[in-house]
Amino acid sequence: MDIDLNADLGEGFGPWRMGEDEALLDILSSANVACGFHAGDPVIMDRTVRMAKARGVDVGAHVGFPDLLGFGRRPMQIDTRELVTYVTYQLAALAGMAQVAGHRMTHMSFHGALGNMAAADAALAEPLVRAVADFDAGLIISSSASRAIEGAAARCGLRVATTFLADRACDDEGLLVPRKLPDSVIHDRQAVLARVRQLLEEGTVTSYSGKKIPMRVQSILLHGDTPGAVELARTVRGVVESIGRIVPISRQMA
Amino acid sequence: MDIDLNADLGEGFGPWRMGEDEALLDILSSANVACGFHAGDPVIMDRTVRMAKARGVDVGAHVGFPDLLGFGRRPMQIDTRELVTYVTYQLAALAGMAQVAGHRMTHMSFHGALGNMAAADAALAEPLVRAVADFDAGLIISSSASRAIEGAAARCGLRVATTFLADRACDDEGLLVPRKLPDSVIHDRQAVLARVRQLLEEGTVTSYSGKKIPMRVQSILLHGDTPGAVELARTVRGVVESIGRIVPISRQMA
Amino acid sequence: MDIDLNADLGEGFGPWRMGEDEALLDILSSANVACGFHAGDPVIMDRTVRMAKARGVDVGAHVGFPDLLGFGRRPMQIDTRELVTYVTYQLAALAGMAQVAGHRMTHMSFHGALGNMAAADAALAEPLVRAVADFDAGLIISSSASRAIEGAAARCGLRVATTFLADRACDDEGLLVPRKLPDSVIHDRQAVLARVRQLLEEGTVTSYSGKKIPMRVQSILLHGDTPGAVELARTVRGVVESIGRIVPISRQMA
Amino acid sequence: MDIDLNADLGEGFGPWRMGEDEALLDILSSANVACGFHAGDPVIMDRTVRMAKARGVDVGAHVGFPDLLGFGRRPMQIDTRELVTYVTYQLAALAGMAQVAGHRMTHMSFHGALGNMAAADAALAEPLVRAVADFDAGLIISSSASRAIEGAAARCGLRVATTFLADRACDDEGLLVPRKLPDSVIHDRQAVLARVRQLLEEGTVTSYSGKKIPMRVQSILLHGDTPGAVELARTVRGVVESIGRIVPISRQMA
Repeated sequence: MDIDLNADLGEGFGPWRMGEDEALLDILSSANVACGFHAGDPVIMDRTVRMAKARGVDVGAHVGFPDLLGFGRRPMQIDTRELVTYVTYQLAALAGMAQVAGHRMTHMSFHGALGNMAAADAALAEPLVRAVADFDAGLIISSSASRAIEGAAARCGLRVATTFLADRACDDEGLLVPRKLPDSVIHDRQAVLARVRQLLEEGTVTSYSGKKIPMRVQSILLHGDTPGAVELARTVRGVVESIGRIVPISRQMA
Repeated sequence: MDIDLNADLGEGFGPWRMGEDEALLDILSSANVACGFHAGDPVIMDRTVRMAKARGVDVGAHVGFPDLLGFGRRPMQIDTRELVTYVTYQLAALAGMAQVAGHRMTHMSFHGALGNMAAADAALAEPLVRAVADFDAGLIISSSASRAIEGAAARCGLRVATTFLADRACDDEGLLVPRKLPDSVIHDRQAVLARVRQLLEEGTVTSYSGKKIPMRVQSILLHGDTPGAVELARTVRGVVESIGRIVPISRQMA
Repeated sequence: MDIDLNADLGEGFGPWRMGEDEALLDILSSANVACGFHAGDPVIMDRTVRMAKARGVDVGAHVGFPDLLGFGRRPMQIDTRELVTYVTYQLAALAGMAQVAGHRMTHMSFHGALGNMAAADAALAEPLVRAVADFDAGLIISSSASRAIEGAAARCGLRVATTFLADRACDDEGLLVPRKLPDSVIHDRQAVLARVRQLLEEGTVTSYSGKKIPMRVQSILLHGDTPGAVELARTVRGVVESIGRIVPISRQMA
Repeated sequence: MDIDLNADLGEGFGPWRMGEDEALLDILSSANVACGFHAGDPVIMDRTVRMAKARGVDVGAHVGFPDLLGFGRRPMQIDTRELVTYVTYQLAALAGMAQVAGHRMTHMSFHGALGNMAAADAALAEPLVRAVADFDAGLIISSSASRAIEGAAARCGLRVATTFLADRACDDEGLLVPRKLPDSVIHDRQAVLARVRQLLEEGTVTSYSGKKIPMRVQSILLHGDTPGAVELARTVRGVVESIGRIVPISRQMA
């Protein structure tokens, strides 16, 4: 059993930092790097990409809404043709920063509200995924379970790596439950670890409604932005290593 | 005599427009496209690049300071290592937008205050030009006459296309005279046309101090952002066509 | 019959202009001034407020979403408590600019998508209107017909001036029909003028569905951002002057 | 001996935090609050002002360059008439946030590069200080020792509270030494405390060149943005309390 460990990095802006990027980089096999729209700036992108390269960690573009103030977490109704250009711009920016650092962009994922909206809406997912394919047909899309994304990717000839968010509840379709619902974010460490074990051993996840649903994933998403998060990430890594192997999605899917 | 005609395009932002991009595109052989720092956004970049491609006009990245409010015209003291990442980011963004549109980025130039500072300061020009070479060694740097830029480009193996700003006074070294000085911007149409003719026929320009200095250029910069500018651009094109041929810098230097 | 003529001014940003502010100011009795969130910046606010003062035109804050790129026209889902602070900030900024210019802020209105959302949703209108009252209980809210806004204002003790958008279709409740629907924006000059006359003479407006509905307004909104808009505004002023008197809302409601 | 203890608060933006505002608020008598240009946003301003009010801590506007990316620390050459409107806008925004929270803005200070430039350049200080007086003639300007600021304030009838930056070296005129010089920022806790004691007991400070110069201050600036900073602030408070009394500048100067 091969599993990728990834996390959202480079989520600072200017003088501000978020999360323990350096500590996480020693645990991950791939990283989603903010591109300056919801977080991130050229200096941070460059530093993150170079740190990732030094540790052999894959980088991908974390593409979000143009909303630093709201960290890309606020749904915005943006004309789809305009959104498509935002996707291209962000992919291009990170690809260029990676290239100059001697690294390579292997994947991308949609961030925050944009990610949630695309995962739940096939009409939105289609042109956004098409924009990814138009930029680089070799990119892997990293996404939590979503038929909208998977369907669009299949039609565009793109590969999708399904990512498990161990600390986020999902509904019976596997879609993330909105953050504002109670217990949508799972704070209990033991519960998070139990979910990882169940996923790896049974290939299932227990949904928000209490139903066991099958889930096949290539990747597990870790965090570094809350107290204890890095320690939990390390523990998850230990659990994964005891059951399978840690392999970045780009090598799983090669 | 081969001369490129270029202009700064895509200088709107969001709902705002600047200049007559469509009219200018029928006159130009290459365009410098703003990349979102001092002007421009993904939608405008995409539209500009596609319009340029449709008319066979070359595109380059117009790289500026991160200052929409000041349109990149205000000198900023930014750490050079940080500036280098800003250059890469902007180059990458435009290169990606061009690629997705089926077009190709052939050149770049430094905008506004960044351009003036780099042109006058070898210590600044060196790392910025190096950043261009690191991103794409095939890019041509389009610049008004500047030993700082030319020297750095020579050391990095980059080609430089010298651009004549027909409506801007220059000093005895060929460097642009600051905008705030009286008569630094030449508004008289006949004076502008006379300067173009003198340049093409004699290879000289009369400096701010009244001295005739030799100037060899590959390109002439036109404008579209003031009343009558497009008409003047058309007239300059006529003058150039009567003396030489209009050839984009990428083909002059191929 | 007293009618205010107002318009949205100061909608540029940095180097960019929108609309013919100076020409409009000679036609208006009050102006809604952008505050830096969807448009406007301190320089433009200052200039607009001073020009208004010089012509005896009232100024109000035009409060919008923090989205320059989308000009505040894109719906954003923002936590209401956060929005409340955005409203206060914008009101305060314009009030201060007006005060320093020796002028006075008499009113405010909600811009674009924020305005549409508040007009249609009492749960949103209530805290936003409350924020206005908390900042200055003497402000008049200028709004197109909206029970949500009017109800909230009544509960907060604020006065509302209903504004007629002569070139925008409304539904049977008087709410603006979304811009994306066909014919929601009325481009025909004669149709616009006929609507103004019908309003002034009959106190009615013909809705999108063709129904005549009663409408009592204190103000008519003019535009200056399209070709011919200023000329149309002048014609509307002529029509109003032939039937009633032009009086700013602050004096109508004194 | 009455001394004010103040610090720069509210220096986050959107999702990002900087410094330990809550811990510092229990130590301070006044706070300089960022206004959204170099840091801060309406939500953070509102929260900071309300926390300050709850603890009886004075608030002032911390007015900076429009440069979130560079945290207002990068010198920018901005037209002085434009800067004046930036000052007014920021003062107005914070004054309004304070007013709505039932608090009062008692003072202001210039942040970062703007502060350094104004402190060193009388031609810049004059119009900026005039802008403060034009907004509210009752405001106190909080500034490190600067003849430019003091002279301008005297001419405008504004009071100045001189602030001692215990961990920043100053030159023989009392002006802050640029951050890039070695040892310009004093990291050693004992050295910082010794400087506070010397100031309080002798009314002198030892300059960067080693010269003892007289310094009379009304306020000491504390920090909360580095590890151990809050603990150091508490220790400084202890030192001050052992020698004099902690009194906000607004009461010292009443």
